Amino acid sequence: MNEVLKQLDDILVQRKHADPEQSYVASLHQQGINKILEKVGEECVETILAAKDYAAGDGREKLIYETADLWFHCLVMLSHLNLDSAEILAELERRFELSGLEEKASRANRIVEN
Amino acid sequence: MNEVLKQLDDILVQRKHADPEQSYVASLHQQGINKILEKVGEECVETILAAKDYAAGDGREKLIYETADLWFHCLVMLSHLNLDSAEILAELERRFELSGLEEKASRANRIVEN
Amino acid sequence: MNEVLKQLDDILVQRKHADPEQSYVASLHQQGINKILEKVGEECVETILAAKDYAAGDGREKLIYETADLWFHCLVMLSHLNLDSAEILAELERRFELSGLEEKASRANRIVEN
Amino acid sequence: MNEVLKQLDDILVQRKHADPEQSYVASLHQQGINKILEKVGEECVETILAAKDYAAGDGREKLIYETADLWFHCLVMLSHLNLDSAEILAELERRFELSGLEEKASRANRIVEN
Repeated sequence: MNEVLKQLDDILVQRKHADPEQSYVASLHQQGINKILEKVGEECVETILAAKDYAAGDGREKLIYETADLWFHCLVMLSHLNLDSAEILAELERRFELSGLEEKASRANRIVEN
Repeated sequence: MNEVLKQLDDILVQRKHADPEQSYVASLHQQGINKILEKVGEECVETILAAKDYAAGDGREKLIYETADLWFHCLVMLSHLNLDSAEILAELERRFELSGLEEKASRANRIVEN
Repeated sequence: MNEVLKQLDDILVQRKHADPEQSYVASLHQQGINKILEKVGEECVETILAAKDYAAGDGREKLIYETADLWFHCLVMLSHLNLDSAEILAELERRFELSGLEEKASRANRIVEN
Repeated sequence: MNEVLKQLDDILVQRKHADPEQSYVASLHQQGINKILEKVGEECVETILAAKDYAAGDGREKLIYETADLWFHCLVMLSHLNLDSAEILAELERRFELSGLEEKASRANRIVEN
């Protein structure tokens, strides 16, 4: 499962120049950065609403679905701008001083939170 | 780098019950779901603004930083509701019919996009 | 022009129970609070993107259009919850110590900003 | 109450060039369009969360307060870009074919909704 984001990055590169009538991703790229960012914003609001509903006891699957949608459209945004998930994960790794599974236990106690 | 989200999930579980005066994560949990979702929304807007600026030629590091912030606060949201990144990645994997690196090449051509 | 929001409030009350197949407003009410709030969020993101574009020199009409859309969907939200624009304007009036045109000049210098 | 937005527009013009250390509005202008748009986005998310809570029975005053905050920061955005509320109200008037109180009753039945 760990390679999911990497695989998605690769798929998104392939789809970037696909036929916009065949591929949702290609149609987003064709419509441009504003359309892609509108989708990021929409999915964020849907995630927030789903989280409120789940906090009130309702809709575990809905929240997972909407959060996945938000992350997916972030990946499309990154791809549109010739970036990918590796750069986001590297930033999180740097920020939390993560450097590999073997160091996790020893480092967990001295993580510098942002 | 692939284990970054998993490591962050583990750190977030540890921090959930830390001293809110010592830990930013603990302080978010203490302030509750609305505060956490406000942060998700704020980071999304900052990501959108950074993406617009980068699309206009300015601020690659800023966009990476803000997207990392958005994903991080999504992880805090998931942790607050006793979910984690594995469930989001599993949803993405399911949606894109990803099932492992070895199948990537063969499957890439028949991905069903959402 | 000053009565526009009041007129819109009145129209929205009328439309609340119209045929959802005939009225966009009625269809929003029928779909419920989450759908209405998704629209508020979407229009906010579109306003933000239009403002960025206009700040870069492009799209005055687009920004006016999107801001009007945002305010309109806020009015639908208020109507759905049995509130209206008068309560928002009263809050702004209270906050800025506005109490009528005749006092504007004298008060303008001692407004307490929020 | 009808003149509230007009009065706020005027105040915002005055405050645009005030001392940023004395005036919240001036400090927003000084920080620039991204800061102002971040505030618009934040207040929108806070409005959405307050509306969800009020729909669940809790927090009428909070929702009014947050919606007022959202509209206020929209006015600051407009002011920053040398626009004002009159242009938004004119767009709403145009869109809903409003042209004065005396016509409201007769026109209400043939409003063209967006």
